[in-house]
Amino acid sequence: MSEADFVARLRSIATDPAARGLADDAAVMDGLVLTHDMIVEGIHFLPDDTPQDIAWKLVAVNLSDLAAKGAAPVGVLVGYSLGDEEWDAAFVEGLDLVLRRFGVILLGGDTVRVPAGAPRSFGLTAIGRAPPGGAPSRGGARPGDQIWVTGTIGNAGLGLAMRLGQEDANETCLAAYKRPQPQLTFGQAVVPHVHAMMDVSDGLLIDAQRMAAASGCAFGIMLESLPLSAALLAVRPDVLDTRLAAATAGDDYQLLFTADPAAAAAIREIAAGLNVMVTILGHAGVGEGIMLTHRAQRIALPDRLGFMH
Amino acid sequence: MSEADFVARLRSIATDPAARGLADDAAVMDGLVLTHDMIVEGIHFLPDDTPQDIAWKLVAVNLSDLAAKGAAPVGVLVGYSLGDEEWDAAFVEGLDLVLRRFGVILLGGDTVRVPAGAPRSFGLTAIGRAPPGGAPSRGGARPGDQIWVTGTIGNAGLGLAMRLGQEDANETCLAAYKRPQPQLTFGQAVVPHVHAMMDVSDGLLIDAQRMAAASGCAFGIMLESLPLSAALLAVRPDVLDTRLAAATAGDDYQLLFTADPAAAAAIREIAAGLNVMVTILGHAGVGEGIMLTHRAQRIALPDRLGFMH
Repeated sequence: MSEADFVARLRSIATDPAARGLADDAAVMDGLVLTHDMIVEGIHFLPDDTPQDIAWKLVAVNLSDLAAKGAAPVGVLVGYSLGDEEWDAAFVEGLDLVLRRFGVILLGGDTVRVPAGAPRSFGLTAIGRAPPGGAPSRGGARPGDQIWVTGTIGNAGLGLAMRLGQEDANETCLAAYKRPQPQLTFGQAVVPHVHAMMDVSDGLLIDAQRMAAASGCAFGIMLESLPLSAALLAVRPDVLDTRLAAATAGDDYQLLFTADPAAAAAIREIAAGLNVMVTILGHAGVGEGIMLTHRAQRIALPDRLGFMH
Repeated sequence: MSEADFVARLRSIATDPAARGLADDAAVMDGLVLTHDMIVEGIHFLPDDTPQDIAWKLVAVNLSDLAAKGAAPVGVLVGYSLGDEEWDAAFVEGLDLVLRRFGVILLGGDTVRVPAGAPRSFGLTAIGRAPPGGAPSRGGARPGDQIWVTGTIGNAGLGLAMRLGQEDANETCLAAYKRPQPQLTFGQAVVPHVHAMMDVSDGLLIDAQRMAAASGCAFGIMLESLPLSAALLAVRPDVLDTRLAAATAGDDYQLLFTADPAAAAAIREIAAGLNVMVTILGHAGVGEGIMLTHRAQRIALPDRLGFMH
């Protein structure tokens, strides 16, 4: 069964409003925002990724879901598969580092043994406090909204290719793959101004498509506006294929959000104050689906918009 | 690294009081009780256990942790490894059943693929509301307290042996293994009267030892008082070895608690009202460790007190 089919079945039993139809990054209950993501060896991380990097990623991908709801992170529960002593000790060291970095407490969890030779899997539940005005959903975009994204897109995808030896390495892209930075501070600051917000984890285009679908809008995305880093453009030509590759690469952990154009000045001010780059990618309109343009030319959607787990 | 060593390392970074030193069944934060347990194929369940039974166990073992804190369960987040279509559909069916049975909502979670042939692992985070007077810890037992346990002990361990074909099956013991029943209603009702409470998951003796250690007390346990079911006594003689086997078998998911002797009448009344069997196993005293007796004879502690994961 595909993940989408399975989630559709789960959705039929997740009828409480707190579950948000399993269509959001997180659940919201009693003023708390709750999210749970798993990572599996050989699927979400490489067997020879360092334990410190894996601990970082496990925490960061979950905190990114909290960031997308404008939540202030509080604590985590960890589900841990025991390995060998040295590896486990290094994981705890990495866990300590990432929790301190983001000011999050370890609340509890569970440790288990796995059968010899089995790939290891880790789960993490992150709990945050919802923003005073409530946590935005993916489904709040309105026709006329501007579509924004933080940071740059595509670094982590290129970093994975570097990690696999398919590209000459550069530190910026490798770091984006190994140590994603959830946009927690910006998420909390911008949340009063947004209509819809989510994090970009599976690929900008697939995540934008999900937001458009949840909102009942069409999203027009201008690929020439896609923010690419100098590190990426140092190894890739600035052509359409590069932009499509970046927009479908995933693992960016940037925030995608929409807001009324009247909020643009406030959003730019918040971003400048926090030293976070923000870019307007396009506009929401009446209709459905995403429509891509590149320098005013209509571009067909690529077959693959991002990762479908 | 053993689970105990790993948890000791984690404890050094889990310094917030909400984490309860990672020595409790659950974390308590903002009036919510939070717990996370994982189950792994080949370790916590058998590859040919039914998906419905596995879904039941995944939910029930976590709700049992909430029961031990006197919490009212609210919702769960599920971490799920995808398998084949039929299996996944049966799991959702079982999940729906167990969530309805205990009045708990599905809040969210994550689904992942695992590499082909890898054992599957599932994680679940359960969230409940703490009781008005606060959630009891494992560490609250006081010298002079009576030590109580709900239900009967040893059925699930015998049920596992039956499930493995080592014993002639009977339905009561098999059901105790396959479909543990968290003592949620009783936990919420009795909580104002208890000094310490936890659930019996790894074995009565090992869990009692943990409670004694956390409380800084000695526990005297009378094995002749250990409540054994008619179903167990139908296939086992009522001798000391049977009682020691039951007290170290695990997977009981009963509640172990201590209370002032003055509360005994109230506790019996609550139990009678809910049709829950309760038994006084012994007394807490000054000192440390657990001391076993059988018909007033001192019994040496067995080498193995329960499951050490």
